[in-house]
Amino acid sequence: MAFDDKTDRTDVPAVPLYQQVMDDLKGEIARGVYPAGSRIPSEMELVKYYGVGRITVRRAIEELSRAGYLNRQQGRGTFVCAPKLKRKIVQKGDVQSFSEGCAANDMVAGARLVSRTVVAATREDAAFFGVEPGCELIVVERVRTADGVPVMLENNAFVLADHPYLQTLADKDLTDNSIFALVAEHSGRAPLKSDPCTVEIALADAQAAPLLEVPVGEPLFYMEAYFTDADERPLLLGRQKIVGSRYVFDI
Amino acid sequence: MAFDDKTDRTDVPAVPLYQQVMDDLKGEIARGVYPAGSRIPSEMELVKYYGVGRITVRRAIEELSRAGYLNRQQGRGTFVCAPKLKRKIVQKGDVQSFSEGCAANDMVAGARLVSRTVVAATREDAAFFGVEPGCELIVVERVRTADGVPVMLENNAFVLADHPYLQTLADKDLTDNSIFALVAEHSGRAPLKSDPCTVEIALADAQAAPLLEVPVGEPLFYMEAYFTDADERPLLLGRQKIVGSRYVFDI
Repeated sequence: MAFDDKTDRTDVPAVPLYQQVMDDLKGEIARGVYPAGSRIPSEMELVKYYGVGRITVRRAIEELSRAGYLNRQQGRGTFVCAPKLKRKIVQKGDVQSFSEGCAANDMVAGARLVSRTVVAATREDAAFFGVEPGCELIVVERVRTADGVPVMLENNAFVLADHPYLQTLADKDLTDNSIFALVAEHSGRAPLKSDPCTVEIALADAQAAPLLEVPVGEPLFYMEAYFTDADERPLLLGRQKIVGSRYVFDI
Repeated sequence: MAFDDKTDRTDVPAVPLYQQVMDDLKGEIARGVYPAGSRIPSEMELVKYYGVGRITVRRAIEELSRAGYLNRQQGRGTFVCAPKLKRKIVQKGDVQSFSEGCAANDMVAGARLVSRTVVAATREDAAFFGVEPGCELIVVERVRTADGVPVMLENNAFVLADHPYLQTLADKDLTDNSIFALVAEHSGRAPLKSDPCTVEIALADAQAAPLLEVPVGEPLFYMEAYFTDADERPLLLGRQKIVGSRYVFDI
């Protein structure tokens, strides 16, 4: 449909037309009118459909491509990207794991082990765990995928003495599963709350970029979460780098 | 202090040294050992202090500069940036306004009016407000500052018929104040919950960049929040672009 003329009145400035087209296309994608992988109508078709200029349509497509909704392929057309993940982070009450978040989005969660390292706790980390600085922590680093696409690089630290199995288990036991579930199974403890849980923006560095299959400098969410269990005992410290174009927080 | 040799053992890979230095410096900044505006020790001094190589120190300083903690000035040294804002977004219960968030961080909140525009509601926005598509909305756009530094470009939409004062008030009534408080005063309604409230990453475009005093392409948080009042009636739709290097979400 063409947009209401009202938005073009000169006495009241309007939401830019390209943004209206953008919002409408976003809605169509969300409702499945244009499903993931499908090709959207051509520029000229959209020009006719919306009753706006070619520059407006081009701008809307550019913005949606930059935001990870569309993917322009030279000579082939513009395609709808796989939907972003929507995971609800609940501060109080149950903590939702990445695996649960994927399931809620009808996506298959995967995990690929990158490294297991034993490190000496820094002063900050030691203070959270209630151990002496220098105490051994085990850090499990994994790439988490949704329907096979890398979404985050997760880095979870535990006190080694409390979770020795994380060092001795086979690699395959840390593959394609929930680490929350694994820890619960072996230690009887599950993360219940994450407080503080902060989210900043970081850029993909030379280590993270290839693992996440994004260019160096790609903007990422950097999440730091201090998880405690049902007894309010510190359980793990999670530091996650999440691909911005593949993720939406619902907070 | 020099880092424990344990972290250099060859049999167990360690958290990279530059990251340990980074974490330690971040801690010192957080504790006020190096207050905002102060110069941190020189590269050579840090090399001695941490007992690590110059490349390691340089990398740590680079990462902290990129993350907005430090600011290197050619020939003058490296300085601590003003702290990021930490605002608690609470999904249930009271909604914290930007002004309250600043106060909690001992920062002075400011607001500069960019525009007031009347637009026709898109299908999506109309569905939230429970009005017909095309119904007039008033969109108030302001730059929000903390201690004078632009932090976000806020874009709040209301149903014009319910909030006519937003069109008639003087510009100064929308300057350096909380729009939540203003709306409560004039309509008797306050935002109580924001659900959904999603956070994505976007890049600063040519409109937002100069207003936020960042380069075009700078990564921003893009937050979309659907606010309802105490009677669960839709009140406003907030779309905010927040400078990543000046903001931390605590969720």
